[in-house]
Amino acid sequence: MAKNLEISYLLDFYGQVLTEKQREVMEQYYNDDLSLAEIAANFGISRQGVRDSIKRGETILLDLEEKVGFAGRYRTVRQSVAQIEELARDIRFENEEGYMPSDRIAQNVEEILNLIEKISE
Amino acid sequence: MAKNLEISYLLDFYGQVLTEKQREVMEQYYNDDLSLAEIAANFGISRQGVRDSIKRGETILLDLEEKVGFAGRYRTVRQSVAQIEELARDIRFENEEGYMPSDRIAQNVEEILNLIEKISE
Repeated sequence: MAKNLEISYLLDFYGQVLTEKQREVMEQYYNDDLSLAEIAANFGISRQGVRDSIKRGETILLDLEEKVGFAGRYRTVRQSVAQIEELARDIRFENEEGYMPSDRIAQNVEEILNLIEKISE
Repeated sequence: MAKNLEISYLLDFYGQVLTEKQREVMEQYYNDDLSLAEIAANFGISRQGVRDSIKRGETILLDLEEKVGFAGRYRTVRQSVAQIEELARDIRFENEEGYMPSDRIAQNVEEILNLIEKISE
């Protein structure tokens, strides 16, 4: 069974929709990196039971992301916000340099506004 | 039956998890503002059937928001992004004025960085 690393990310967002036991099984597998045998021992169930539980959980998380799309959207917003942060720091640096009007500040502001427009779509 | 306007907002985010019929019933009620009787006629079911369907749908949406929290989080991010936009426009204006280093630009950059830190938590 190949680990789908995307699942670990989805687990952060949608984990609460799973039953507590299912969530714990998946967290031990995806976040704590335990083996199927170790998880089986922790819950007193068979390895096959663990495998089935993980598969069911994955299906629920992937299905929810397909319908709600929060995780993907959030990742895009985070990337844009990181870019805005960099541009703002650059404006601070340029402002401290003290030559104005600054083409670089003007350009950074436009880039920030473009990123915001993209986020707001 | 009092309309919960929050539901209309949640319907935008999580509507895809409902069955197609349930989603359409709720959209007619919350977005198109049809009466229970009108919706009942559209679907060939009783007014009580419409009422039950809406109640079930509301429960699903509210439960999902309680567990996933996307809608509320998204609203907060949108508000912060709107503030960042305003601050960036103000930097553009101040930059065009041409006095530097500008305390106002410095202050706006700090506010932008604070908002970004808040979003990123």
